[in-house]
Amino acid sequence: MPQRVEIFDSTLRDGAQAEGISFSVEDKLKIVKALDELGISYIEAGNPGSNPKDIEFFEKMRTMPLKNARLTAFGSTRRRDTTVENDKNVQSLVSAFTPAVAIFGKSWDFHVTEIIKTTLEENLKMVKETLAYFKKLGKEVIFDAEHFFDGYSSNPEYAFKVLEAAVEGGADCLVLCDTNGACFPSTVFELVRKVKETFKVKVGIHAHNDCGMAVANSILAVEAGAEHVQGTYIGFGERCGNANLSTIIPNLQLKKGIHCIPEDRMSSLTFTARKLAEIANISLNKRDPYVGSSAFAHKGGMHIDGVCKASASFEHIDPELVGNKRRFLMSEVSGRNTILEKIREINPSINKESAETQAIIQKLKELEHEGYQFEGAESSFELIIRKQLGKYKPFFELEKFKLMTEQPDRGSQSASALIKIKVDGVSEITAAEGDGPVHALDRALRKALEVFYPELSHVHLTDFKVRVIDSRSATAAKVRVLIESTDGETSWTTVGVSRDIIEASWIALVDSIEYKLLKELEKKIKVYI
Amino acid sequence: MPQRVEIFDSTLRDGAQAEGISFSVEDKLKIVKALDELGISYIEAGNPGSNPKDIEFFEKMRTMPLKNARLTAFGSTRRRDTTVENDKNVQSLVSAFTPAVAIFGKSWDFHVTEIIKTTLEENLKMVKETLAYFKKLGKEVIFDAEHFFDGYSSNPEYAFKVLEAAVEGGADCLVLCDTNGACFPSTVFELVRKVKETFKVKVGIHAHNDCGMAVANSILAVEAGAEHVQGTYIGFGERCGNANLSTIIPNLQLKKGIHCIPEDRMSSLTFTARKLAEIANISLNKRDPYVGSSAFAHKGGMHIDGVCKASASFEHIDPELVGNKRRFLMSEVSGRNTILEKIREINPSINKESAETQAIIQKLKELEHEGYQFEGAESSFELIIRKQLGKYKPFFELEKFKLMTEQPDRGSQSASALIKIKVDGVSEITAAEGDGPVHALDRALRKALEVFYPELSHVHLTDFKVRVIDSRSATAAKVRVLIESTDGETSWTTVGVSRDIIEASWIALVDSIEYKLLKELEKKIKVYI
Repeated sequence: MPQRVEIFDSTLRDGAQAEGISFSVEDKLKIVKALDELGISYIEAGNPGSNPKDIEFFEKMRTMPLKNARLTAFGSTRRRDTTVENDKNVQSLVSAFTPAVAIFGKSWDFHVTEIIKTTLEENLKMVKETLAYFKKLGKEVIFDAEHFFDGYSSNPEYAFKVLEAAVEGGADCLVLCDTNGACFPSTVFELVRKVKETFKVKVGIHAHNDCGMAVANSILAVEAGAEHVQGTYIGFGERCGNANLSTIIPNLQLKKGIHCIPEDRMSSLTFTARKLAEIANISLNKRDPYVGSSAFAHKGGMHIDGVCKASASFEHIDPELVGNKRRFLMSEVSGRNTILEKIREINPSINKESAETQAIIQKLKELEHEGYQFEGAESSFELIIRKQLGKYKPFFELEKFKLMTEQPDRGSQSASALIKIKVDGVSEITAAEGDGPVHALDRALRKALEVFYPELSHVHLTDFKVRVIDSRSATAAKVRVLIESTDGETSWTTVGVSRDIIEASWIALVDSIEYKLLKELEKKIKVYI
Repeated sequence: MPQRVEIFDSTLRDGAQAEGISFSVEDKLKIVKALDELGISYIEAGNPGSNPKDIEFFEKMRTMPLKNARLTAFGSTRRRDTTVENDKNVQSLVSAFTPAVAIFGKSWDFHVTEIIKTTLEENLKMVKETLAYFKKLGKEVIFDAEHFFDGYSSNPEYAFKVLEAAVEGGADCLVLCDTNGACFPSTVFELVRKVKETFKVKVGIHAHNDCGMAVANSILAVEAGAEHVQGTYIGFGERCGNANLSTIIPNLQLKKGIHCIPEDRMSSLTFTARKLAEIANISLNKRDPYVGSSAFAHKGGMHIDGVCKASASFEHIDPELVGNKRRFLMSEVSGRNTILEKIREINPSINKESAETQAIIQKLKELEHEGYQFEGAESSFELIIRKQLGKYKPFFELEKFKLMTEQPDRGSQSASALIKIKVDGVSEITAAEGDGPVHALDRALRKALEVFYPELSHVHLTDFKVRVIDSRSATAAKVRVLIESTDGETSWTTVGVSRDIIEASWIALVDSIEYKLLKELEKKIKVYI
């Protein structure tokens, strides 16, 4: 097994082929920056000739120096029956001015004759000549042997001839691609070993997840001697996606002691995954190994009990090593310990058998039955405990609100809200407009409350999520609204459930404001103790 | 390698430990039915003693015969320093009246001494006595050797002694559990082989996905001789989840010729995955191998071109084998072929170079930029093409609507809508109430339109999805609304995007109705041709 492995990220190329993914030039620059900071060795960034967006991207990259990564342009070998000088695609790769290029070529005889429709002999020339051309220009050349594993099973001799042509062309690395994602780990191990024994250059692996084994295939390739692993950082890509690098890196570095990224960057793995998901505007799969929000989340009472005694009992690594954290989920099966811990933060004299504990567990069950989930909304949960313990007094009362939406609308803001609230016997009535009813309501409520609580002026919402809980009953279905708020220093999340999206949002909005005012009050009280 | 493998599903037990999952008794019965119909060998269904819900479930199961599966109750070995007769948990397993039980016991010395705090000797007795007790009752006994792989690496001799105690107790199957999900495929292969060589009974594998290799670990276990595979059907479970059976079954049956479920059920794999996701109320990961909606979705122009020439070029199996289907995604990178195909369904005389094709591609790009996605909303896409081709005339005009929401509300329905529309110069004004503004608007619109189009009375919405597109700008973020409608025979999906959830819903609602009226009109026209 090698001591170091080069990590090659293709989020901007193979990742962009995933359903639902579309990057702007700005997005691409942000992703390059995030991956470079993590210490990824190669960042593959699309085909400079394919569209105006990519041309603009490569131009901007020329003035953006990278700390760790080598920017890599991606393209195919020259087309059949032409020269590299006359091939538009090859020439556009030259004009990207990257230190490295990844060139893919066919290594499956069926693809040569049936898809690009040329002779086996011409394909070998296309590989050799294209690589030699880029080597002469002083670039590092990575050769992606497309469909290598299928190619080997169809015509082993020819698949090896393609690799040979690449080596003759000067390839710095032979990457064996399981383009269709059909290969099994034992086959990958065997073939990587065979290629390692035959050629002296570096060998890499490029795995797809169509059989759910892209990570394992990459690991077995490394066990067989591969020194270069391609994938996408959070796994998205064409069809079922690519090998997930945020899983492979800790698998290799923490479990096998193989160097992939600088040691001090390991604790940024989770942060980087969340950042990329944000830029790509997708939700990171919470069950993703190492970096998912559920990766160290414990729900079963027995597991929570075990982890409290010794974390190794149900955790394969310390979550902090990858910048993630342990969570005990609040739910009917999580056992009383988790809930009790939260209760005792507010009233330390309460124990497992107290009537208050029973009442809170009962309330929790009722709310879960209604569709609430507190796993991501600890602030609302704290307010519920306080209400049950009598440690709560509302900061304001709603007298009424009226929301109106009209079409055709007369301005840019289609919704308006009127609100009347009361604080300590004093009423305030006001109104606001917004893009949609929730926006208008949020603005009106804050406007009215700031008269009494100026500290709210720093608070704003940073996230707003709507989940239809029982979508089969369509527009009359229940919705759960999650709101994330911040005052610039901390952030907190609250939840509301109703058949009416306005009401669900209102519940979460009120919780958000009450929670903030409560924390402000606690700060003030501490000064006097 | 074995010729048949038993599939053991733990969705109702390990799956219920996943974040965000909570099953009602009704849900559990539906899941049992779906898995039984698929031909799963064992369905593990929780611990009958753990809560009233499970007691009710096992009672109901006594009158529900299964066609293929054996219902299996799950529990631990007896506690330390007691007898099986006096152990509450063991006795509750008896009262579940299942033909099989899965009993887990500790096989990691550290867990014995540090977590359940007993002696290594007593733990062996706990295993042997508990199993022997259930065998005497005539049950099939599956032994889950918890943490077997960690146990072996800590104390190999003791881990094997635990298996030996299980065999002496009469275990029908020794299941090696990678409880923490930390094991690598080559280790799994080696250890399964060793256990197979040592014991004569069946050997099984139970893998978790904390290193992203649960599927591969299960496959390598089978390659090493395991005849029993445990997992959850769509992979959810504690932390990163369990081995995904909807991937493992086709991996083994289609790729290795190993029998897992009846051959004629293979094409139900996708349907069952979607059904389970629906019951669990989660979205099935679209990138899930075989059964995900993206598993055979092609976006890159080169891939689409390849698949059109020969599907094997970029597909590892025929999607129909697992009941899934091929999709060409409409997007800026999907190339013109896909879009052209749709255009020619409406006007066959148009070709790639026509001005209309250019205009539609341009329009598509603009809409995608605004946040539209047509990948799941083909009906809205058809309407856009028609509008561009001039093959469209609106079925009604909106004169105005007004929506009102008030708090405190005076009845069960908090929102009301007033609407005025015009059809062929005739106006209709009406109003309706609903749970929330979209519900009220939907009702009012249908009420007004049914005056002119009675055929709409059969149409209703079956799904309503809200996606916040740019959630970082919170309540003023753009939302995308997807609406699925049905007339009882067919169903269709439409989409709307706006900063205002009401407007986005309105756009999708109008498309849904126009699409239905268009199809009705087409039917009528056909009669006259």
